[in-house]
Amino acid sequence: MTTTAMKQRSLLGLKDLDAAEIESILDRAAYWEQQAVKLNPVLQGKFVANMFFENSTRTRFSFEMAQKRLGAEVMNFAAAASSVEKGESIYDTVKTLESMGIDAGVIRLKPIGMLAEIAENVKVPLINAGDGNNEHPTQALLDLYTMRKQFGSLKGLNVSIIGDIQHSRVARSNLWALRKFGANVNFCAPDSMRASDLDASYISMDEAIRADVVMMLRVQLERHAGSVMNSAEAYREGYGLTIERAKQLASHAIIMHPAPVNRDVEIDSELVEHPQSRIFPQMSNGVPIRMAVMERALS
Amino acid sequence: MTTTAMKQRSLLGLKDLDAAEIESILDRAAYWEQQAVKLNPVLQGKFVANMFFENSTRTRFSFEMAQKRLGAEVMNFAAAASSVEKGESIYDTVKTLESMGIDAGVIRLKPIGMLAEIAENVKVPLINAGDGNNEHPTQALLDLYTMRKQFGSLKGLNVSIIGDIQHSRVARSNLWALRKFGANVNFCAPDSMRASDLDASYISMDEAIRADVVMMLRVQLERHAGSVMNSAEAYREGYGLTIERAKQLASHAIIMHPAPVNRDVEIDSELVEHPQSRIFPQMSNGVPIRMAVMERALS
Amino acid sequence: MTTTAMKQRSLLGLKDLDAAEIESILDRAAYWEQQAVKLNPVLQGKFVANMFFENSTRTRFSFEMAQKRLGAEVMNFAAAASSVEKGESIYDTVKTLESMGIDAGVIRLKPIGMLAEIAENVKVPLINAGDGNNEHPTQALLDLYTMRKQFGSLKGLNVSIIGDIQHSRVARSNLWALRKFGANVNFCAPDSMRASDLDASYISMDEAIRADVVMMLRVQLERHAGSVMNSAEAYREGYGLTIERAKQLASHAIIMHPAPVNRDVEIDSELVEHPQSRIFPQMSNGVPIRMAVMERALS
Repeated sequence: MTTTAMKQRSLLGLKDLDAAEIESILDRAAYWEQQAVKLNPVLQGKFVANMFFENSTRTRFSFEMAQKRLGAEVMNFAAAASSVEKGESIYDTVKTLESMGIDAGVIRLKPIGMLAEIAENVKVPLINAGDGNNEHPTQALLDLYTMRKQFGSLKGLNVSIIGDIQHSRVARSNLWALRKFGANVNFCAPDSMRASDLDASYISMDEAIRADVVMMLRVQLERHAGSVMNSAEAYREGYGLTIERAKQLASHAIIMHPAPVNRDVEIDSELVEHPQSRIFPQMSNGVPIRMAVMERALS
Repeated sequence: MTTTAMKQRSLLGLKDLDAAEIESILDRAAYWEQQAVKLNPVLQGKFVANMFFENSTRTRFSFEMAQKRLGAEVMNFAAAASSVEKGESIYDTVKTLESMGIDAGVIRLKPIGMLAEIAENVKVPLINAGDGNNEHPTQALLDLYTMRKQFGSLKGLNVSIIGDIQHSRVARSNLWALRKFGANVNFCAPDSMRASDLDASYISMDEAIRADVVMMLRVQLERHAGSVMNSAEAYREGYGLTIERAKQLASHAIIMHPAPVNRDVEIDSELVEHPQSRIFPQMSNGVPIRMAVMERALS
Repeated sequence: MTTTAMKQRSLLGLKDLDAAEIESILDRAAYWEQQAVKLNPVLQGKFVANMFFENSTRTRFSFEMAQKRLGAEVMNFAAAASSVEKGESIYDTVKTLESMGIDAGVIRLKPIGMLAEIAENVKVPLINAGDGNNEHPTQALLDLYTMRKQFGSLKGLNVSIIGDIQHSRVARSNLWALRKFGANVNFCAPDSMRASDLDASYISMDEAIRADVVMMLRVQLERHAGSVMNSAEAYREGYGLTIERAKQLASHAIIMHPAPVNRDVEIDSELVEHPQSRIFPQMSNGVPIRMAVMERALS
């Protein structure tokens, strides 16, 4: 495989992927979602490593489900953060697994900017399962898929993304991807959680919840020790989707969240399985999305 | 699948299962035990998640063996206790895996009463791999299977269960199941380890070891810090199956233990592989039992 | 299977394996390396447990890759050191997995001398994936394979093994195996890292780097708290393969390392992927070696 072809099979982010390519992944996911039979061994004999240098049961499980539904052989690797603190260890581990003959790797890691460097040096396709606060492309793909399924088209859709934008790879991947399809993305966040690197508009919570899509982000309050938002109560009051606020949602609007949810912090517990919530359907949609992404990487 | 049909495929406990249903599981396990070929892919294309919110290599491994012998696709999930302390996290995790399309889930968890609540809210069969000190149905099934294999019938069998009854889901599941078959179950425990919720008779250690089945329970002395039993020596002397005591076993009697064993605490090391011990055979029997249980859940 | 036949299928170490047997494993590995198709299900229906009582992502992954390429069913077990500190727990765990019906076990453990004792008591072939500082036979096999591939023959080859010989099972397995083929093995180590139990010659660093094969060992400085070598700088200066020293390598010589590498301690970072380095190729070679070993154990 040439380096170019290999790169075309990798999925490092959505920022540099064009709309047609994204759309073809969404279409293929729709194909996989419609299959009645769960096991379709188009990747039989292919070996995939899920390399999680940062823990995520949920995402790893979704990838594993997708890979196994396509008949691939799956090997999991979850590193305790402590043993791979140093960047070089991550590089050496990926090179090791490549040497052992994997056909593709799914990778989640914390250090920013390292993924591109690794991808330059390995000869198998790599799928980004979340790198630092940079990108989480398969999450955004499943988000787009969920929105497209709901509204038919992404063009002109008003999407509010609410929460800790600064630390959110989900916000970044969604922003970059949604704009390619003409969606109108707005952020809503307290000052301390805004991202200075992103060219985006911030709106108030009152405005944000009147969008077609209200996407709540998981907040990690321990990251904001010095801030006024340093309590679940204060955060919920200022930026949580409370039952009170949910009354102002448009009747056609949907609630989204990348999960895991902090119930009664960024979203009230009663809303998680609300009729307008797509939180669990998002997780369902993640599987066909990742089937499309793995198939693209390997066939 | 209707909710009723689904519940019939779940295995939450033995208390509410009738004798005929239990017997049909034991019979099917006997069928599986007799198969010469290890791999019988009757569950090919089925996806099973082993969700262990409380660690147990042994039980997880036994389920995985059973699932793979039936050709199922297996995904494992072991949560560090710390990250899922809160009940809601367990519920959300199970709902997540259900959303991703598993066909059945095996679950072990600590909080008492939570399993029934979860089972009400998911649409796939759930197998209880141990919930708090409530039930551990597959362990009791393999225990009954081991006894039936030894004695032909459970009717009239004298079974002594010795140790920390209060904290034992094994004792509860065995008590409830054995009584359905007319076995005579007695407990033997120091006062601090008796279960006030159970209607059962307690006998002395001298009487207990004259039963047909002498089942020792694993004791966790750290749970009894304030008690006189708070030392391996004191416990062994009062309630351990010592070499000395084993001399009083009836020649037809068998020794059982759900494992892992604390050698030289509740049972002397030399007795673990004693000719009358069925401790390792119990583990062998666990595999066909769990094959029968998984098959019942999924086919 | 008779006990003798079973022992012939186990691989506990290279010390007691004759040259012809080692050679047949290397030859079979060469066969497997040449296969164009990755999946060759000659072990379909066989169940293998990888029991790692000491963590090693790298070795476990290599075994898993080998086992899955041969179509075996793989179950992994990684014990936190804490829960299996006591020897008896390891024995009981292995007996448990044997009782559950595994066909072979791969085992890594720390206590010295325990492996032989366990192997006496189980009826399935066991593969040593590293036991204390005694042996690491599959590592040495892949090392021999790498050398034979490079030089055609091992006879008369000068091999320097440099580093913490005392704690190294890699050094021991290589020493014993290489000598059977007439290779000339020399060690190089500071006094505090020499092995008094081994009959071997020690040479200076200047001499050591003039060998045909320069094998660096991973150093764990925390083991040498009281020594003058208790700093990365001091160790690198005394016994590291630095860029400066690498200039003295013979042009036909190769650099080896069992990995994981401490970059810039025992070997300078720039040398890891040096044209004369075989560090990543060693990892590639580990897979066909382990395929040959698993096949020998199970067919």
